[in-house]
Amino acid sequence: MTVVAGRPAIPAARYAERLRHAVEAATASGLDALLIGVGSDLRYLTAYEAMPLERLTMLAIIRGQPPFIVVPRLERGAAEQGLLAPVEIVTWGELDDAHAIIAGRIPAPTGDAGPRIAVSDGLWAVHLLKFQEHLGPSARFEPASPVLRDLRMVKDTDEIALLREAAHAADRVVASVAAGTLIGRTEADVAREVRERLVAEGHEFGLFAIVASGPNSASSHHEASDRVIRAGEPIVLDIGGVLGGYCSDITRTLWVTGGDPAKGPDERYRAFFGVLHDAQAASVQAVAPGVACSAIDAAAREPIEAAGFGEAFFHRTGHGIGLDGHEDPYIIAGNDIPLRSGMTFSVEPGIYFPGEYGARIEDIVLCGPDGPDPLNEAAHELYVVDG
Amino acid sequence: MTVVAGRPAIPAARYAERLRHAVEAATASGLDALLIGVGSDLRYLTAYEAMPLERLTMLAIIRGQPPFIVVPRLERGAAEQGLLAPVEIVTWGELDDAHAIIAGRIPAPTGDAGPRIAVSDGLWAVHLLKFQEHLGPSARFEPASPVLRDLRMVKDTDEIALLREAAHAADRVVASVAAGTLIGRTEADVAREVRERLVAEGHEFGLFAIVASGPNSASSHHEASDRVIRAGEPIVLDIGGVLGGYCSDITRTLWVTGGDPAKGPDERYRAFFGVLHDAQAASVQAVAPGVACSAIDAAAREPIEAAGFGEAFFHRTGHGIGLDGHEDPYIIAGNDIPLRSGMTFSVEPGIYFPGEYGARIEDIVLCGPDGPDPLNEAAHELYVVDG
Repeated sequence: MTVVAGRPAIPAARYAERLRHAVEAATASGLDALLIGVGSDLRYLTAYEAMPLERLTMLAIIRGQPPFIVVPRLERGAAEQGLLAPVEIVTWGELDDAHAIIAGRIPAPTGDAGPRIAVSDGLWAVHLLKFQEHLGPSARFEPASPVLRDLRMVKDTDEIALLREAAHAADRVVASVAAGTLIGRTEADVAREVRERLVAEGHEFGLFAIVASGPNSASSHHEASDRVIRAGEPIVLDIGGVLGGYCSDITRTLWVTGGDPAKGPDERYRAFFGVLHDAQAASVQAVAPGVACSAIDAAAREPIEAAGFGEAFFHRTGHGIGLDGHEDPYIIAGNDIPLRSGMTFSVEPGIYFPGEYGARIEDIVLCGPDGPDPLNEAAHELYVVDG
Repeated sequence: MTVVAGRPAIPAARYAERLRHAVEAATASGLDALLIGVGSDLRYLTAYEAMPLERLTMLAIIRGQPPFIVVPRLERGAAEQGLLAPVEIVTWGELDDAHAIIAGRIPAPTGDAGPRIAVSDGLWAVHLLKFQEHLGPSARFEPASPVLRDLRMVKDTDEIALLREAAHAADRVVASVAAGTLIGRTEADVAREVRERLVAEGHEFGLFAIVASGPNSASSHHEASDRVIRAGEPIVLDIGGVLGGYCSDITRTLWVTGGDPAKGPDERYRAFFGVLHDAQAASVQAVAPGVACSAIDAAAREPIEAAGFGEAFFHRTGHGIGLDGHEDPYIIAGNDIPLRSGMTFSVEPGIYFPGEYGARIEDIVLCGPDGPDPLNEAAHELYVVDG
């Protein structure tokens, strides 16, 4: 993580604490090894942000041993600079078998069963396959997220400060894009502006910029095309970036009139947007410690279904957010994880009529000790603008 | 891939051809299935650039069936827009088991053995583990790169045009950074300038910017720190970005004097830099169809070893480059793949004295029908500059 003057940051001492909790969680789960490749789990536990390349970089938490990290010899300097957690650095040379170094340290459990090993969800398959080859068919592999998510889902005050700062930066981008010229420009051009503004407002980089105009607004993950925006149509603006290592993600829906009152939203659009608005607000209001993720999903879904738009809301209500843009907890039917104070996630119902138009409203919401604490502060109504 | 006016681009018809070759390669390898997740293999075969998120997006090439792609329902629009290869789109809903859709279509081979399945190297472990769970212990998984690399390693003329344009853009960034102010600035500040200039010269984005000054120049994968650059020291500048979907990657070594002739490189530095310069040139000159990758590595390594610096050159000589910054073929001892006309890779020996200083020179080289065709054109000597 880049530390910027005046910006909240994760104190270096935090990483030792997180690592200790990960060791405890691995032990409590009965794992013989927890193997963390390059990515957000490694950043969470050690602060080290390595390039995702073909050479193996891996934090190994092995039962009965102090944690160590295996890095390519030529990245030792980068690792020494980037690691804030107290782990031994073990380097491997270009002609060494890096996977064997780790596999050779995993003890065989007593009894017939092979070792139980959790690997970070995003580890490349090519690495997992090499470990499977080294350790043979008795070794049992599983994803690490069920072990690590109890740590990562609940944000500490520094993480919350960064997520809030990222959310406010994204709010400002929405406000300036909504106030600017849109008609006559391509979606792609507006998306370029969004990415520039995300950086100008404090993000290290823009992560995505969905600018979905007219009929494209009915395509929930449409990115941005060469379609030219015209007066008398909606734009779903779903944007996000990374600030201090943490992600922003906001959606607001605009309607551009070109200053012509006759080109405002039609009555049907106003009607279903009203339903969407109230459903999103109800879902946010349902947030409180102890409430199941599935209940937050239901709080958005039920009013939309009751109004007859159930078929038009065909995705989950939200996803956790932090170092990853999408992470646990997922706000979806069937996920009965109870919310805890400190969890952060999106609440983003949408209503879509393919070939016609659609709308979505999304906030990042913190589950506070007594209820919802939305991190985004931009107004939620339909932004009817001249464009 | 974004098509920019006036820039070479991959014609849409190319994807059907690549896909056909992949089907043939999978059949020839005796695979029951070739499963390609989000990433460069998917872009190579279909042009589709999906966000690497937790929801499964996967191209499935299954024995005896036409290829199809599984995408989340809410990404159907994006897939329709992004796919240039002729594949059926199969969508899955938020509560469906996406992995089961694919696993259920893989036929069990006759006999006792389970199906043989290759997965893209960068597929997330969490997805591979789900397929392993669905298909049981008899299914045999392997990485896809040995099957796909014969296609991807040999670039066609459009790919070469893009790689050449990316290389020239990177050349221009090296020239402008070398001509500018360096002394008194932090490495991180110069790295920011590098990233901006990579974009200004035509890249979609900067991928990395190693600015390694003084003793940091001895750390081969040092990124960029808050160290302030001073007169009388070297800077290893190793930079790259993505242009038209294809990667650039160049390294040049500078020495900043502050305009003071007494602060030029010392004799020892000049001596080993000369060895490095000639070794890099010899390695490039060794490039020709039929020559093994290991021989290109040896052509750089032997003169460095002969001069007594063998221990100080502790990494491989290079890596393939294309849609990925690092890909097959790797220029390393033990890799006996013979070069073919159309292969593109880096030739980048380095000599490093930890705690003191180091140097590296890197070109991207195309193996032409008759010999080397270096894509970078920047001068190779030590850039002794005022800074």
